[in-house]
Amino acid sequence: MTLLTETVAAIIPASREAMSAAQERQSMLTKPLGSMGALEDLGTRLCGMYGECPPPLPEPVSIAVFAGDHGVHAQGVSPWPQEVTTQMVGNFLAGGAVINALGRQVGAEVVVVDIGVAGEVPQAPGLKARKIAAGTADMTKGPAMTPAQLQAAIDVGIEVARDCVAHGSRLLVTGDMGIANTTASAALISVFTGLDVAEVTGRGTGIDNPMLAHKVTVIQTAIRVNGASPEDPLAALAGVGGFEHAGVVGYLLAAAALRTPVILDGVIACSAALVAQAIAPDAADYWVAGHRSVEPGASAALAHLNLVPLVDLQMRLGEGSGAALAVPLVQAGARILREVTTFDSAGVTNKE
Amino acid sequence: MTLLTETVAAIIPASREAMSAAQERQSMLTKPLGSMGALEDLGTRLCGMYGECPPPLPEPVSIAVFAGDHGVHAQGVSPWPQEVTTQMVGNFLAGGAVINALGRQVGAEVVVVDIGVAGEVPQAPGLKARKIAAGTADMTKGPAMTPAQLQAAIDVGIEVARDCVAHGSRLLVTGDMGIANTTASAALISVFTGLDVAEVTGRGTGIDNPMLAHKVTVIQTAIRVNGASPEDPLAALAGVGGFEHAGVVGYLLAAAALRTPVILDGVIACSAALVAQAIAPDAADYWVAGHRSVEPGASAALAHLNLVPLVDLQMRLGEGSGAALAVPLVQAGARILREVTTFDSAGVTNKE
Repeated sequence: MTLLTETVAAIIPASREAMSAAQERQSMLTKPLGSMGALEDLGTRLCGMYGECPPPLPEPVSIAVFAGDHGVHAQGVSPWPQEVTTQMVGNFLAGGAVINALGRQVGAEVVVVDIGVAGEVPQAPGLKARKIAAGTADMTKGPAMTPAQLQAAIDVGIEVARDCVAHGSRLLVTGDMGIANTTASAALISVFTGLDVAEVTGRGTGIDNPMLAHKVTVIQTAIRVNGASPEDPLAALAGVGGFEHAGVVGYLLAAAALRTPVILDGVIACSAALVAQAIAPDAADYWVAGHRSVEPGASAALAHLNLVPLVDLQMRLGEGSGAALAVPLVQAGARILREVTTFDSAGVTNKE
Repeated sequence: MTLLTETVAAIIPASREAMSAAQERQSMLTKPLGSMGALEDLGTRLCGMYGECPPPLPEPVSIAVFAGDHGVHAQGVSPWPQEVTTQMVGNFLAGGAVINALGRQVGAEVVVVDIGVAGEVPQAPGLKARKIAAGTADMTKGPAMTPAQLQAAIDVGIEVARDCVAHGSRLLVTGDMGIANTTASAALISVFTGLDVAEVTGRGTGIDNPMLAHKVTVIQTAIRVNGASPEDPLAALAGVGGFEHAGVVGYLLAAAALRTPVILDGVIACSAALVAQAIAPDAADYWVAGHRSVEPGASAALAHLNLVPLVDLQMRLGEGSGAALAVPLVQAGARILREVTTFDSAGVTNKE
């Protein structure tokens, strides 16, 4: 796995020197120290990621929406038909979905990546046509991906992040689309956190109690059939993951290698982050938790990643929607360090 | 109180018709119903405020920062010297404070209102020089404001909101500056929620335990001396409020009369909202809680107002900073209703 190996080798921890400088600067700005709460910690972390204090303004922003289908859909884990993945990709390309509206709100470009949609996706500006296969295989019968497919999907994610940064992006956002992808996410989260499947499995875009119980059984079967374990993260990802999960893993690792912050969206991104962290622990220095999805697995994964989300609005859409909402908050954290004057230079008396 | 009476008379409840239309529209958009959580409720509320579905995009945005000083500062309730209010107003006018940085982040103009700063404020673009007096009187000795001062301060707030809307603003944000103003806020919150002073009094911009205990005693004295009670909200406001609180009361009521949403910042805005709600209950239909300040009184007031905040980042700065961060979230709530396509028009299959 040349591209992956090269990417992992390039990852270094966030700069402690820049973070120390940021902490000192926070205490000199015209505000009581700590009064901006989590935004001060975030600003300090951004300095560590970029390796400079004050940090650059985190813009332009790219949202990469990795879209793929899932063989496990055949097991009846979602009330939505599989063709909705293809239809929604069409909606993204036409600019009519929630992520498009939110991208316009926060001034971010939306990059749509067909990494494994089962249907035919029309060529359009904004599409990266990088289909690995027409959906993964059914993970209850064997691995969702072959080793070659896994490598190719991770490479897609690496290349998408590299392209975004090469075109100037200074802040990346994860997005995803794939009917049944909360099933793969819950499987990965159970494997990497060690929590019971039932604890980390949720209702996705909306299922009833019998379907939820069935979904838990399906996930338990998939983990058992594939012998998925945190000791071999790549095999676990190939076994019970999805193409979009593999794409996000590559994207997260490449962003870290390029010292570019990434905002994680919900349960799909958080499950991929667990895999990426297992591959390269230092990469987690470059990730910001955008929001707390109502999916129980998302909170479990965030706790495991030791990340506190910026937005908590009971959302469960995916697409990158929760992370997109966090973009102005991340930018605000940087802007405070860049633009607020010090007590000395403003002639403001500090606390007695 | 002609201007106040006229303003209150013009307030009507949010449109139930527009909110019903919004709820129906939410179910037709290409996302699982409810998947955008609190943002869907917010979008629906915005339709009610503006009286149309979909709502207009809530922009341009004005942040009005009401600045005043407090006679009660003489009682030793803050570690900051009083001249910091004047110095920070200078900082706002020079563009160097946190609220300026956040205003630039969210594309909002910052209007600074000297409604009662004790020191000399330099003329500058962006300043509304509407000083009622050089700070309020010490509320532990009698009313903080005379009836004439109260009326004048409320009028300033009404006029500021009217000016902002007349110049095109479609979304207002509250801001405040005033050393010792969390003391007046806690007093008002205790009076209007009926909770003990100790329960709603916090550390403001940062005080130690002995000063906190002293602050509670000072507030208890002020409430007793003034006989402040929720039955006479204007007398309570004159007794234990501040000029910036009175300004925000006028601003909140005028915004409601003009059917323009207002985002409440922290404990100062929330305490003023309790007064405004007591004067005109329907006005609360037009208020959005921007964030949850760490000041305990803010949460008490929000619960009393039945408002759930959008941002919760352990902040306690004031200036309008928490509300400013919520601006893109409010705009996103409207944008979803305006820009996301329906299942029918996008050719996306709805849930089975």
